[in-house]
Amino acid sequence: MAERKTVPTMKDVAREAGVALGTVSKVVNGLPVGEEYRTRVNEAIIKLDYRINSYAKGLKATRTNTVAVLMPNLINPFFTSLVSAIGRALAAKGCRMLVYETDSDPGMEQANVILAEQQKVDGIICLSYNQNLKVSDGVTLISIDRYFGTRIPCVASDNYGGGMLAAEKLIENGCRHLAFLRIGTKLTNEPIKRKDGFIAACEAAGIEYTLKILDDGAPFSAFGDFLGEHYHDGKLDFDGIFCVTDSMAYLIKKMITEMGLRVPEDVQIVGYDGVQMFGDLDYTCSTIVQPVQAMAETCVDMVLNPDGAKNPSLVCLPVSYAYGGTTKA
Amino acid sequence: MAERKTVPTMKDVAREAGVALGTVSKVVNGLPVGEEYRTRVNEAIIKLDYRINSYAKGLKATRTNTVAVLMPNLINPFFTSLVSAIGRALAAKGCRMLVYETDSDPGMEQANVILAEQQKVDGIICLSYNQNLKVSDGVTLISIDRYFGTRIPCVASDNYGGGMLAAEKLIENGCRHLAFLRIGTKLTNEPIKRKDGFIAACEAAGIEYTLKILDDGAPFSAFGDFLGEHYHDGKLDFDGIFCVTDSMAYLIKKMITEMGLRVPEDVQIVGYDGVQMFGDLDYTCSTIVQPVQAMAETCVDMVLNPDGAKNPSLVCLPVSYAYGGTTKA
Repeated sequence: MAERKTVPTMKDVAREAGVALGTVSKVVNGLPVGEEYRTRVNEAIIKLDYRINSYAKGLKATRTNTVAVLMPNLINPFFTSLVSAIGRALAAKGCRMLVYETDSDPGMEQANVILAEQQKVDGIICLSYNQNLKVSDGVTLISIDRYFGTRIPCVASDNYGGGMLAAEKLIENGCRHLAFLRIGTKLTNEPIKRKDGFIAACEAAGIEYTLKILDDGAPFSAFGDFLGEHYHDGKLDFDGIFCVTDSMAYLIKKMITEMGLRVPEDVQIVGYDGVQMFGDLDYTCSTIVQPVQAMAETCVDMVLNPDGAKNPSLVCLPVSYAYGGTTKA
Repeated sequence: MAERKTVPTMKDVAREAGVALGTVSKVVNGLPVGEEYRTRVNEAIIKLDYRINSYAKGLKATRTNTVAVLMPNLINPFFTSLVSAIGRALAAKGCRMLVYETDSDPGMEQANVILAEQQKVDGIICLSYNQNLKVSDGVTLISIDRYFGTRIPCVASDNYGGGMLAAEKLIENGCRHLAFLRIGTKLTNEPIKRKDGFIAACEAAGIEYTLKILDDGAPFSAFGDFLGEHYHDGKLDFDGIFCVTDSMAYLIKKMITEMGLRVPEDVQIVGYDGVQMFGDLDYTCSTIVQPVQAMAETCVDMVLNPDGAKNPSLVCLPVSYAYGGTTKA
């Protein structure tokens, strides 16, 4: 006989947290309890991997038309454009949106999932940095950009195609030696494919390329050192740069301008995301535009899909190129 | 004897909507009903000005630790910075945030208030364009920038002081004839005081000034016509411009540059809001920075204040000046 895994009960949570059963019940049902008790109960829930089953079953019976959205922050304009589009897609289906900023912190993400579940959400859409994120049965989880395994659907832009398009546009604009610059998470994720697409397009065109890849948390000044190493006789070794985000393209353009070089005359730059000034004015740079609207609608369709098991495990949506002044066209 | 106003009951709502009483109850309690029924019930609630009293009383007994935030959009970076700061201030108090985009549409705002109340929120923080916004008893409403009368607390930056500061900084930087440009709502609101502060500072310094004020919805090109009328012999009549928002400052700078004039050498520009590139990089222009963090914390303290009657009716928080390249310092 195979070993039967014991499913933790509310009683186990109470014992672990050192509180009365009623206190656990209050926390799980979103009722008022002292802040310290709430923290202890939530920590015990995470530790024991307690799934709020009875309540999750209740969820199935009565949908609350409420969906939680977890984002690293609401400061980065790409993230806010996603939240905006998701909120509008939810509203069009008569649903409310709870929003959480997680600061890309795995613990904060898990705590927010628990808070959201206590509010009895129908589902959660997240851009997460926690590949072990635990969600109760009956709550649908949809991931943007991050891959959590085949059971959690992931929605992303066509990052591979976007990387190809960036290289192709730089080559089309006369560049003969390209550079690829990235700073980002090491977790399995879709944006990492921007590099693969970029390399494929360079190799197809027989164009030389240089890569500089930093892990999240590395000092941005390392890119300055990189540019310095590739600067000889008043020129850079490369005449086209693909930066993995628009904000990075903005900072790299500043560095290059401070070196006395001109953008786009001496060096052309393409970013990724499609960020516009003040949200709806000029593009901040020439860029690969993510299909934010389509991504949001896909997330919402999947999170509200009553037959969630039929959701695909990965949906990549087509990107486009937009001129924004940092390339010749 | 004074006429006694009849308070509408749930039965009246059912009669008006032409639905069963149970359907009204379901809508009011956020339970699933057909979309058409929900719409009819919500319309009847608005028409009869039905206040969900029994449920509002329930609210007082069990707080849900959930607050709704109504914003015109999540595209404008000033609005998103407010939502971000409000969300963080709420999270610090263990509260969840429901977010609604209203497109500045009064009907959408009222509909969202009803949706939020069905989710049994403790309170609502809004930047609204509906001066008749109706909220149920027991739900605290806090307004940002808009004045709804003395019973609804309003939180804003010190707009009058900000207008003065903008004029003073331009004068300090050598300007001798200023212009004030505004496009915005005609509703009673705090930002309108930016003009009064600007005028007061010009008059105190004995500096000439010109005003150009457009109502919301006017074509932005009217500012181009205005600049054209004040352009003589390769120069503008004024050498300093205060624009009521940073996004406006961005557009006016483009217009002035296209006229062949240099910013800040020929014309200096100050905006208002404190918008930064990508949320946390350079300021988009020299600007009066709104104290977003303090505004958010004040809204949250007031919306969660158990003794809401003691909230002040207006709180104006101090602004600061930030150099962002469109002035000489």
